[in-house]
Amino acid sequence: MSRKKSTSGSFSVGRRDFVAGGGLIASGLLSARVANAATDGNLPPNVPEWMKEQGAPILSPPYGQPSPFEKNVVRRPRASTPTPTASSTSTPLQDLRGIITPNGLHYERHHAGVPAIDPDQHRLIVHGFVERPLIFTMDDIIRFPSESHVYFLECSGNSFWSGTTVQSTVQQTHGLLSCCEWTGVRLSTVLTEAGLKHGANWVLAEGADAAAMSRSIPIAKALDDALLVYAQNGERLRPEQGYPLRLLLPGYEGNVSIKWLRRLKIGDRPFETREETSKYTDLMPDGTARQFTFVMEAKSVITFPSGGQQLREKGFYEISGLAWSGRGSIKRVEVSADGGSSWRDAQLQEPVLSKCLTRFRLRWNWEGGPAQLQSRATDNTGYVQPKRSQLVDVRGLNSYYHYNGIQAWQVAQDGAVTNVV
Amino acid sequence: MSRKKSTSGSFSVGRRDFVAGGGLIASGLLSARVANAATDGNLPPNVPEWMKEQGAPILSPPYGQPSPFEKNVVRRPRASTPTPTASSTSTPLQDLRGIITPNGLHYERHHAGVPAIDPDQHRLIVHGFVERPLIFTMDDIIRFPSESHVYFLECSGNSFWSGTTVQSTVQQTHGLLSCCEWTGVRLSTVLTEAGLKHGANWVLAEGADAAAMSRSIPIAKALDDALLVYAQNGERLRPEQGYPLRLLLPGYEGNVSIKWLRRLKIGDRPFETREETSKYTDLMPDGTARQFTFVMEAKSVITFPSGGQQLREKGFYEISGLAWSGRGSIKRVEVSADGGSSWRDAQLQEPVLSKCLTRFRLRWNWEGGPAQLQSRATDNTGYVQPKRSQLVDVRGLNSYYHYNGIQAWQVAQDGAVTNVV
Repeated sequence: MSRKKSTSGSFSVGRRDFVAGGGLIASGLLSARVANAATDGNLPPNVPEWMKEQGAPILSPPYGQPSPFEKNVVRRPRASTPTPTASSTSTPLQDLRGIITPNGLHYERHHAGVPAIDPDQHRLIVHGFVERPLIFTMDDIIRFPSESHVYFLECSGNSFWSGTTVQSTVQQTHGLLSCCEWTGVRLSTVLTEAGLKHGANWVLAEGADAAAMSRSIPIAKALDDALLVYAQNGERLRPEQGYPLRLLLPGYEGNVSIKWLRRLKIGDRPFETREETSKYTDLMPDGTARQFTFVMEAKSVITFPSGGQQLREKGFYEISGLAWSGRGSIKRVEVSADGGSSWRDAQLQEPVLSKCLTRFRLRWNWEGGPAQLQSRATDNTGYVQPKRSQLVDVRGLNSYYHYNGIQAWQVAQDGAVTNVV
Repeated sequence: MSRKKSTSGSFSVGRRDFVAGGGLIASGLLSARVANAATDGNLPPNVPEWMKEQGAPILSPPYGQPSPFEKNVVRRPRASTPTPTASSTSTPLQDLRGIITPNGLHYERHHAGVPAIDPDQHRLIVHGFVERPLIFTMDDIIRFPSESHVYFLECSGNSFWSGTTVQSTVQQTHGLLSCCEWTGVRLSTVLTEAGLKHGANWVLAEGADAAAMSRSIPIAKALDDALLVYAQNGERLRPEQGYPLRLLLPGYEGNVSIKWLRRLKIGDRPFETREETSKYTDLMPDGTARQFTFVMEAKSVITFPSGGQQLREKGFYEISGLAWSGRGSIKRVEVSADGGSSWRDAQLQEPVLSKCLTRFRLRWNWEGGPAQLQSRATDNTGYVQPKRSQLVDVRGLNSYYHYNGIQAWQVAQDGAVTNVV
C-alpha cells in the first residue's frame, strides 16, 4: 500500500492501492471488531430475538419514521434566542451521509415562526413595474412548466466570526446548511407572464409569515436560475421550508430565498428592507458595511471525524465531509491531517453538481498520535477557501455573516475530537 | 408558437417556443385561475389570517413532518393480502415531483413484517467458500470506505399481467417503485476482506426478519456495483427499508436487495431458496419457468395526468413522468397523446444517472377532446419499452413478475383520467 507520511498518520487513496494491500483486516488497519466465526457454522452464533416472531405490519405508520434507535438524530437549536419564533435550528451533519438532507432534518430559520398555510387559500401576487399585475393560486403555479435541481441552502449566519461561544460539534459550527432536490417553476416564466416594464431592475419578495420577511433581488438573478419552489425531495415543501411556495435562489444566502412567498413587487431600485439594512450586511474594519452580499463563497467542512466524536482505536478511518460553492461546482477538495502543513486531494463523489453539496472522502490511517484535520475547497472559478486569518485580515472581527474559513478539528491522543478555535 | 397537430391536442417543446409565444396566459392557454390585481395595489387584496399572529416555534417537532394539508400523501396497500406482515404498500407517485422519494414514502414489501433491530446487537456474518469467515458489527461496516449513489428500487411484482383487478391510479399500477440516495460499502470490499476461495460463484444473502428472506446472487454482480447500505437520503436506513443494514443490487428486482442483512454465505452454485423457486420466477407459455431474471428492463410511466386525476379545463398542461432501466441510463422518452399513432420526444431532467429514475416532461395543449397518453422509454443499450401486446406475445399471461409494458391513460372529454386496461 503506497503511503505518504505525515506527522499523525498516513493517507491511502484509490481502490487499487487498497485491494493490493490485502484489505484492511489483513493489513492490520481494521481488527478489533472483527472476529473469526466458527469455521463450520451455517448460521451466525446468535439467532436474534427479532427473527423469532413476526415484525411490525405494513403501514406502521403510513408515512414512515426513523428507527427509535436514531432518536438523537434531530435538529437542534444553534444558540439561545429571545423567542422561539425568531430562532434557528441546525442539521445534524455529523450523522448524515451522501449529499441529500432528509426533509425532516432540514435546518430551520424563522423570523416570526412557521405559519400554518392552507394551500387553497394561498395567493401569489406579481405587481409593480409590470404590464399585467397578476394573482396566482397554487394550482396556477403548478400548471406552469417545471424543473428539478439539487441545490444546497446555507444561512449566511452559518458563521464563526467572534469565537466568544465555542461551538463543539459540526451541527453547531456548520449546521445551518442543507441540500435537497427542489422542484418548481422558473421565476422568469412567471415574470414573463406579467411582462416586465422598462426599468424593472429589482424584485421585492415578501413572505406570508407574521414578519412579512422581505428581500430585494437583482433582476438578473430573477431571470437566471431563480425558482418558485413547491416540492422538496419529491414531496410538497415542509412547513418550515415555506409550504406551500418559496423562492429559491441557487447559491445565494438562504435568507433571500423567501419562504411562504406571497408577493413579488417589481421596481427600479432595491427596496432597502430591514433585512438588507440593519441585518444581513457585513460590517468592515473601516466602519462601512457591505450590502447585498448574496453569494455564498466556496466552503467545506469535515463531518467525520468532527467535534464531539471519538476514535476508539488507531487504524483505518475514512475522513468524510462536504464542500459547496454558490458560484458553481466544486473542482477540488484537499485534506490535511497535520494542521495545514501538507495536503492530499480527497475523492469527490460523482455526480458533482453546480450549487450543490459535494461529498468528499479520503482514506486515512490514524497512528494514534495527535492530529489536526482540515479541509480546503476550490470551486470551478478557481476560488480557494481561505484560512480564518486570511478572512480576518480583510474583514476584521465585526462581521457576523458570510464566514467561510477553513475549519480545523483536533484529534487528541485518546481519540477525542474537538473544535480548534 | 410552433405546434404539431394531433388528434387531441398539440405539443410545444422548448423554452424558446414558449417565450416567443408571449407566455401561456397571453396565448390563452392558461387563463381561468389568473386574474388582474388592482393595478395600484401595494398589497394583495387579502392579508391572510396567518400573517396576523406568530407562527409555530422552532422544533415543532425536532424531526420535521409534512404539512397537515398533505395528509393524503401516504403509502397505501397495493392489494389485500392474507396477513399485514406479508404484504406491500406503494409510493404515491401521482403526488411526487423530481426523482427522489422521501424516506417516509418509500414503498414497502415485507414477508414477515418489519423487525425492530438494535443496531448494537446486529451482526453480519460472511462464511462458506472464503479464506477467513468473518463477523462484523455495524461499527465495523461503517468504518470501511463508503460510496453514495442515487438508485431506483422496484419490486418485480410492480406488475400488470392478468388485469383481473383494475388498478385505477399510478400508485396502484406502478407504486412499488422508489428512488433514494443510498450510502454504504461495496460488497466487493467485504468479500475481499474474507478472501474468496476457488469456486466461489454465488452468494446467499439472508435477512434477520422472521422470514429469514434469502436469495442467491451471482458472484459477478456481488463484485460489481453491489452495496452494503446503511444510509438512505442522508440519514440511516428506515426500518421498513432494512435498518440497520441492507444489500442493494442496482438495477435488479427489489427482492434480491435483502433487507436487515445478517448473513452472506459464499457457494459454488445457487442455493435454490423458496424465493427463487416457487416465487420470483416467470412462468412462460410452454410451462417452463424462467429463473434468476434479476434485471429490471427499461420502463416508464406518466405520473401526470394519470388515473384518478381530473383536468379542469382545456389549455396548457405539462405531461410529466418517470423512466428507468436496470441496465443503465435512460437515453430517450417519447410521449404520445393519440394512443400511440404519433410520438414526440420528452425533455429529460439532468442529471440523467445510471440505474436511477429519470424525470421526463413535455408541454401539451389539451384541446378538450378525448386523448390517450402513453410514454415509451429507450435505454442506453438501445432497448425500447414494449407494448403490452408485444410482451404477451412472448411471455403469455401466466407470468406475474417483470411486466414493463407501455402504460396508457385515457383523458375523457370531461377531463377525467382513467387506466386503459
